[in-house]
Amino acid sequence: MPGNTSPYALETPALLLDTARMERNIARMKTQLSRLGVAFRPHVKTNKCIEVARRLMGTPEGPITVSTLHEAEYFAANGVHDMLYAVAIAPGKLAHVAALLARGVRITLILDSIEAAQHLADFARSSGQSFAAMIEIDCDGHRSGLATGAAELLPLGRFMHAQGITLAGVMTHAGSSYNCVGTEAIRAMAEQERLAVVTAAGALRAAGLPCPAVSVGSTPTALFAQSLEGVTEVRAGVFVFFDLVMAGLGVCGTDDIALSVLTTVIGHQREKGWTIVDAGWMAMSRDRGTAAQVLDQGYGLVCDAQGRVLDGYIVAQANQEHGIIAHRSGDPAKALALAVGTQLRILPNHACATGAQYPRYTVLNASGDVTATWTRNNGW
Amino acid sequence: MPGNTSPYALETPALLLDTARMERNIARMKTQLSRLGVAFRPHVKTNKCIEVARRLMGTPEGPITVSTLHEAEYFAANGVHDMLYAVAIAPGKLAHVAALLARGVRITLILDSIEAAQHLADFARSSGQSFAAMIEIDCDGHRSGLATGAAELLPLGRFMHAQGITLAGVMTHAGSSYNCVGTEAIRAMAEQERLAVVTAAGALRAAGLPCPAVSVGSTPTALFAQSLEGVTEVRAGVFVFFDLVMAGLGVCGTDDIALSVLTTVIGHQREKGWTIVDAGWMAMSRDRGTAAQVLDQGYGLVCDAQGRVLDGYIVAQANQEHGIIAHRSGDPAKALALAVGTQLRILPNHACATGAQYPRYTVLNASGDVTATWTRNNGW
Repeated sequence: MPGNTSPYALETPALLLDTARMERNIARMKTQLSRLGVAFRPHVKTNKCIEVARRLMGTPEGPITVSTLHEAEYFAANGVHDMLYAVAIAPGKLAHVAALLARGVRITLILDSIEAAQHLADFARSSGQSFAAMIEIDCDGHRSGLATGAAELLPLGRFMHAQGITLAGVMTHAGSSYNCVGTEAIRAMAEQERLAVVTAAGALRAAGLPCPAVSVGSTPTALFAQSLEGVTEVRAGVFVFFDLVMAGLGVCGTDDIALSVLTTVIGHQREKGWTIVDAGWMAMSRDRGTAAQVLDQGYGLVCDAQGRVLDGYIVAQANQEHGIIAHRSGDPAKALALAVGTQLRILPNHACATGAQYPRYTVLNASGDVTATWTRNNGW
Repeated sequence: MPGNTSPYALETPALLLDTARMERNIARMKTQLSRLGVAFRPHVKTNKCIEVARRLMGTPEGPITVSTLHEAEYFAANGVHDMLYAVAIAPGKLAHVAALLARGVRITLILDSIEAAQHLADFARSSGQSFAAMIEIDCDGHRSGLATGAAELLPLGRFMHAQGITLAGVMTHAGSSYNCVGTEAIRAMAEQERLAVVTAAGALRAAGLPCPAVSVGSTPTALFAQSLEGVTEVRAGVFVFFDLVMAGLGVCGTDDIALSVLTTVIGHQREKGWTIVDAGWMAMSRDRGTAAQVLDQGYGLVCDAQGRVLDGYIVAQANQEHGIIAHRSGDPAKALALAVGTQLRILPNHACATGAQYPRYTVLNASGDVTATWTRNNGW
C-alpha cells in the first residue's frame, strides 16, 4: 500500500514514459528479429515521437512504418526518409504523397485492388511522379487485403507492373493475433501470417513479376514467430511500450509496460469502496481492450506512484475527467485507503489509444526521475 | 445512395462542424433556459474552442464551466474571466488556480470533503490567496459528491465558512440521465437533480451559511426539465453538437448532430459486405456509448458526403486507421456499392470523445461550404 507520497511536481493527469522498460522492450524485439534474420521497419503509430523512433530505427533515416501522412510529414521533417504508409491509399492523398516524394522522402504505398491501382496510375501519369506500392494480403480475415490464394493477385500485380507502378512487394498484418491467448496460438498465427505473404510473393515471382519486399507485422507474431523464412521485414509498434492487452495475451508482463498515466486522488465514496481520481476516460482513452480477455482490467490497472501494481485495483468506471478506482471484486470492504492528493499510476489497456490522448510524454529514467518531455505528433 | 462525389478537397479523416445545426442546437437550449428562468454557464469540455464558446456565452467574459485547468488557461487567454472548474480540486493544482486568480480570472472550485477543504484552507493561508468553492452534491449515485441529506453537508459548509473559503453554493451533475430512455424518465431525473441541490442549498441557508449558486447540469435534464425552481444556473455542454448517444435517448434527432467525421473509401471485402474507410477508432474514438442502447450504432452512423444518413450502415468494426462499414444487419448482400475515393460522413457516438481526437474543426456553413478552421484546445 503506498503512502501519501507525491514524487512528481506534475499537474495530473500526465503521461509517464519509463525509458528503462522501453529500452528493455526494444532490446527484446531487436534480439528476436536478429535471431530470425529479418529486417526491422518499426511501426511508429504507437509512439508518434521522433525521440522514441530514433531508438527503434536502424539509421537516422529509417526505415519506419507510418499510419498517417501527418506522421510521414513529421518524421520526414526529423530526417526520416524511408517509410511505408501502411494504410490503403486514398486517391485524395496522392498529391500529398507526391509532394513528399518530390522532397526525397521514399514513401511506399499499399493497395489491394485494380480500382485503387488505376487511381494511382492515373495520378502518376497526370503528375509525372512515379510511385512504389506493395500489395496488401489478408492473412486472417480481419481487415483489408487480398485473401491468400485470391485469383485477383496476379492480375493486380501485372496491372501495376504494366502501368509503371513499382511493385515493391507484399505485406500483411495479423491483427487477429490480438485475440490469440497463449504462446502456441500466437506461434500458429505467426506461421499463418508468414505463409500468406511468402506464398503471395512466390506466385508473383513465378509469374515473372518483381516482389523485393515481403513484410509482416504485429507485436505478438513478431515476438513468438519460430521462423520468418522468406520474410524480408517486420513491422511492429506496440511492443515499445506494451500494455494490458498484451499482458493479457501473455506477450509481456505488467512490469514491462512502459507507459502509464499519473493521476491524483480527488475524493471518495467510501461506502461504495470508490476512490475518485482525476484520470477519466479522456486520460485513459475509451479503449476497453481487456473487456474481452479473461482478466478485465477496466479502464486500467492501478499502481502506486512508483509504479508498483496494487493488485486487484482497477479504474472500474470512468467519466470524462473522473476515474473511479475500485477493487476488481467489487467488494467495498477492499476500498483503497488513500488520502486526497495521493498520486497513483494507471497502466493502460492499449498504448496506442492512451498515448493519443496526450500531446507529450513525461520521460522517466531508471530511477524514476523526470529527465525530459517528448512531444507526440497526434492527429491528421 | 450517394454518387462518387468528393465535395471537399480535404485530407481525410477530418472533423466537420455543421454550424447551421450547431446554431439551432444553441438556440434550443437558450430558449429552454430562458423559459425556465435560469442562467446558463455552458460547459466547454465538449467543444474546447473559443469560437464555439463565444456563441454559447452570455458575454465575452463568460460565464463558462471547464473540466481542466488547461481549458481554464486557454479560455482566460481568450478573454473569459468567469469560470467554474467542475472537477473536485486536487491539492497539487492549487498553485495553478492561484496564478489564474491572481491574473483576475474568477475561477470557482468544487469539493465534497473536509479533507479537501482542509487542503484548500491550508494553501489559502500559506499563499495569501483566497478561494471560492462550491460543495458537490451527488444526486444519482454515479460519481462524486455528498449524497442528498448526507450528515456531512453542514459540517463541511461550516468548516469552509470558518476557514475563510467563500462558500459559493452547491452543484450537481445528473450523469445518470445518459441512461434515461425517453422523455418521462429524463424529466423525472431532472426533478431528482433539482431537488438534490435545492434541498442542500436550503439546509445550508437554514444553518445561516451562504449559498448563492445552485447549479445543475446535463444536456438531457436541462432540455427536459419542467421546472428549475430554486436553481440559479445550468451547466450543459454536449447539446452544442449532440451525438448518437443523445439521439438514442430521444434528446435529439440524428439530423441535429452537428459534428461528423469526413472519411474516404479505401477498399472493400465484397463477399463480407465490407466497405473499408480511412476513419478507424483513432478518428472516431473508442467510445461505444450506443452499445448499451436499443440501437447499437457501432463506431458511428454512415452518411453520404452531404450528411444524409445511409440508413442501417454503421462503422461496424474499427482498427486504428481503418473503419469497416457494414449494414447493421450483418447481411453481406446489403453491401454499399461505393467506389474507392468516395467521401462519406460518419456521425459519432459521443461528441466529447470524437472531438478530442482532432486538433481542429473544419467549419461548414448552411450550404455545406467550408468557411473556416477552428482550433481545439485538447489535453492537460
